[in-house]
Amino acid sequence: MTAAAAQVVIFGGTGDLSRRKLMPALAAIDQQEPGRIASVVGIGRRPKPDAAFRADITGDLAPDVRGAFTALAPRVFYRPADVADRSSLDTLERALAELPGGDVGRLYYLALEADLFEPAVRGLADAGLVAERGDAWRRVVVEKPFGHDLESARALNRMVEQYLRESQVYRIDHYLGKETVQNLLGFRFHNAIFEPLWNAHHIELVQMTVAETVGMGLGKGRGQFYDETGGLRDMVQNHMLQLVSLIAMEPPSSLDPEEIRSRKVDVLRALRCPDPDGMLAEGVRARYVAGEVDGKRVAGFRSEEGVAPESTTETYVALRAEIGTWRWGEVPFLLRHGKRLPKRFTEVVVHFRTPPLSLFDRPGDLDDIAYRRALRSGALCEMRPNVLRLRIQPSEGIELTFGVKAPGAAMRMVPATLDFDYRERFGTEPPEAYQRLLLDALHGDPTLFLRADEIEAAWRWVDAVRAGWERARVPVLEYPAGTWGPTEADQLFHGCEGSWSNG
Amino acid sequence: MTAAAAQVVIFGGTGDLSRRKLMPALAAIDQQEPGRIASVVGIGRRPKPDAAFRADITGDLAPDVRGAFTALAPRVFYRPADVADRSSLDTLERALAELPGGDVGRLYYLALEADLFEPAVRGLADAGLVAERGDAWRRVVVEKPFGHDLESARALNRMVEQYLRESQVYRIDHYLGKETVQNLLGFRFHNAIFEPLWNAHHIELVQMTVAETVGMGLGKGRGQFYDETGGLRDMVQNHMLQLVSLIAMEPPSSLDPEEIRSRKVDVLRALRCPDPDGMLAEGVRARYVAGEVDGKRVAGFRSEEGVAPESTTETYVALRAEIGTWRWGEVPFLLRHGKRLPKRFTEVVVHFRTPPLSLFDRPGDLDDIAYRRALRSGALCEMRPNVLRLRIQPSEGIELTFGVKAPGAAMRMVPATLDFDYRERFGTEPPEAYQRLLLDALHGDPTLFLRADEIEAAWRWVDAVRAGWERARVPVLEYPAGTWGPTEADQLFHGCEGSWSNG
Repeated sequence: MTAAAAQVVIFGGTGDLSRRKLMPALAAIDQQEPGRIASVVGIGRRPKPDAAFRADITGDLAPDVRGAFTALAPRVFYRPADVADRSSLDTLERALAELPGGDVGRLYYLALEADLFEPAVRGLADAGLVAERGDAWRRVVVEKPFGHDLESARALNRMVEQYLRESQVYRIDHYLGKETVQNLLGFRFHNAIFEPLWNAHHIELVQMTVAETVGMGLGKGRGQFYDETGGLRDMVQNHMLQLVSLIAMEPPSSLDPEEIRSRKVDVLRALRCPDPDGMLAEGVRARYVAGEVDGKRVAGFRSEEGVAPESTTETYVALRAEIGTWRWGEVPFLLRHGKRLPKRFTEVVVHFRTPPLSLFDRPGDLDDIAYRRALRSGALCEMRPNVLRLRIQPSEGIELTFGVKAPGAAMRMVPATLDFDYRERFGTEPPEAYQRLLLDALHGDPTLFLRADEIEAAWRWVDAVRAGWERARVPVLEYPAGTWGPTEADQLFHGCEGSWSNG
Repeated sequence: MTAAAAQVVIFGGTGDLSRRKLMPALAAIDQQEPGRIASVVGIGRRPKPDAAFRADITGDLAPDVRGAFTALAPRVFYRPADVADRSSLDTLERALAELPGGDVGRLYYLALEADLFEPAVRGLADAGLVAERGDAWRRVVVEKPFGHDLESARALNRMVEQYLRESQVYRIDHYLGKETVQNLLGFRFHNAIFEPLWNAHHIELVQMTVAETVGMGLGKGRGQFYDETGGLRDMVQNHMLQLVSLIAMEPPSSLDPEEIRSRKVDVLRALRCPDPDGMLAEGVRARYVAGEVDGKRVAGFRSEEGVAPESTTETYVALRAEIGTWRWGEVPFLLRHGKRLPKRFTEVVVHFRTPPLSLFDRPGDLDDIAYRRALRSGALCEMRPNVLRLRIQPSEGIELTFGVKAPGAAMRMVPATLDFDYRERFGTEPPEAYQRLLLDALHGDPTLFLRADEIEAAWRWVDAVRAGWERARVPVLEYPAGTWGPTEADQLFHGCEGSWSNG
């Protein structure tokens, strides 16, 4: 065991996240960096022998992960504790100190319900479990939701500040653990050819879609939670705004975590709040009604378990935003998210402007003057040959569309695609997001975790959108499950700006 | 038959070019634009019945072209004439007038030895064969060589001017008939994303290679002609400088043929003449000696038929040129051509600069200061992640290399390629160059043909290179057939500029 070996302590150790994501990720880390994990300790309220805990986990694992877990299993333990009960935490403190690695680094993972977050942090602090001494670091990974609006997020951050230094807090958004998301940094700042184009002079519009086919699913309490939350806060506030930050940020001066996170926050701070007048046209919200997905009839949102029959919560959002920086000027950032759409995918599509002079592909029956007049009047749109598609999931890759001459005598240009596929290039699936993020937390690298000010900046904008919806009385439209949402969202594209890209 | 139908008259009708290239191209045009070709008339010195001529051609055609030729064959004729004999041309004039289409447009193709070019033009003019009346246009397609230096090219152009208007002259370079060459225009000026990068701010270096595996081959008199000509004049002066023009030209204000050709000439005029001091290092020339190509022993250049045993003619050229325009500043254009190289291919490779700030991939054992010092001293080169490869032959396509994050915890960047393949996209071989060019000539579109001033500008530069070789006493190096030429050519890349791309 090396000096860097650490203990991983999972509160909510018997829960779904722990079994489905964290344990496989830890087993993979143990193979990737042997000696890094001294022990893994699952915490739950009820007592349970280590052997039973190990057996439970093994039973849940996919066959291809079991082998890796077998090696880790002897270092996996179970200890009972109740974060609301000080004496049980005192007992836990002594128990962890006796388990391997507890005297060096220790990573707490709070895989708990939101309402247990505050008592857990307070309890850990009061019991002396987060006090750092010398090499014995203590870090706490926390899961979203990080509040439900700016006020609650601020309160949460102030609470956390009382007990933990910001450098001890690792707020996880698993989207940031995806290779393609991280690659946005490399793509933009390792290559010299994209950055000169990456601004309002050359980019006309950026659109992003996070489309899901699922509805509420069968998770206990999921319907109720979602009905209280809605798509804007459940998906846009975190995952989508993270994508916006990475796409729109200024180049960092180094890869220092604080530098990168500061540049990301800059974007969120500059994200324009739609004014109430604009909201009616530029802030579409909707809810799915009964329909058909993948050939199966599915219920409408209001009929899902836990959802109020008169719910006005949105399951679909389409917003036209802007980023008030010199770089982005008035370039629209169109954000779309919905549940029960026809296809599951996440992508960012960058539309480049047309060349300043149109040499090719004028309609044959128009002379130069008639052509220009038609363009000015909006009766005709010029071809926009250059589109960059950054695919995040399910297939990860990059596509650049450009115009190429069609074979034959005429100078007729047709679209062609330069294509890059992540799996094809590397012959492997990208590593699981949790594996990457847990390893970063063990290494003490917070780059891919959210900073308090980042969360607050995101909430400030989300609150403004919600307030705009209310002030402008933006209706919650309806769309049948299995369709691309309300047609009103198509109007977010103005004039010749194009249309939604459906993966 | 439409009013646009025309007669095609081939001087040198029984020759190699006529049978191998022109006849198949005309058959294909006849299928592509039925009614465009009224008749094809082969001209040779000796009398021959039409039927025998048709049979000769059919016998030479590849099986897949024969079908198309069958439809054209009844409109193919043969007439004897001697361009040096006025009375025979008078006879020809009457004969052509009687054949289909002769009273409308007529395209003469001079597929003749270079020394017959002047008598042919003069003879055609004197016999009234190039006089245009109303719709009865007369155009003359001429093959290279267009002189062997500036002086002879000027004399040739002055001679032609006496008998033909410039708009009647179609100087053919079959390289310009290749789809990928034409696509350079579309690629650069239809897409808005390349032009902003297409200058000295973003491009570090451009390299071009025309590599051949063949030596002198078996063509009658080929060895002697080449020995008198050399690679610089045989390949660089025409094909390679055409590529340079298309890569480096300013955007035209329209697709008007004169506009495009003017912008191309601008580049050739700005091509810097290497000064004698530079020539020794920047103007490599060499000749192949015996070696092995494709597993077969082959003779050295001096042992080829028709080549003088003490020949000092170059079969390999590698030059470092610059283009003195605002756009290109001091960007090196490295041109390489050779015979008996290991592989046949033509490509243009554009090397983009490194980003202004290097965030990734610093060697792990160097701190920031040591890294910068190593870069400055030239002990270390930064990765240059962005390379654009424009493949002209044998496979036509485009490749863009960029850096992408390798899977895993580190921010390690590795090269990936965005790839476009012409055949894959269009499912067909690109049309033959001669088909395209003959059709353009029939349409009266001279865009892809060389203008007199273009030829002269190219010769001016080639003459300067040759003079530089002589003044600087640049040796003619030797390289074994089947190798990539003399190692001295590797020195054309300075410092961290990279190396030759071998297809």
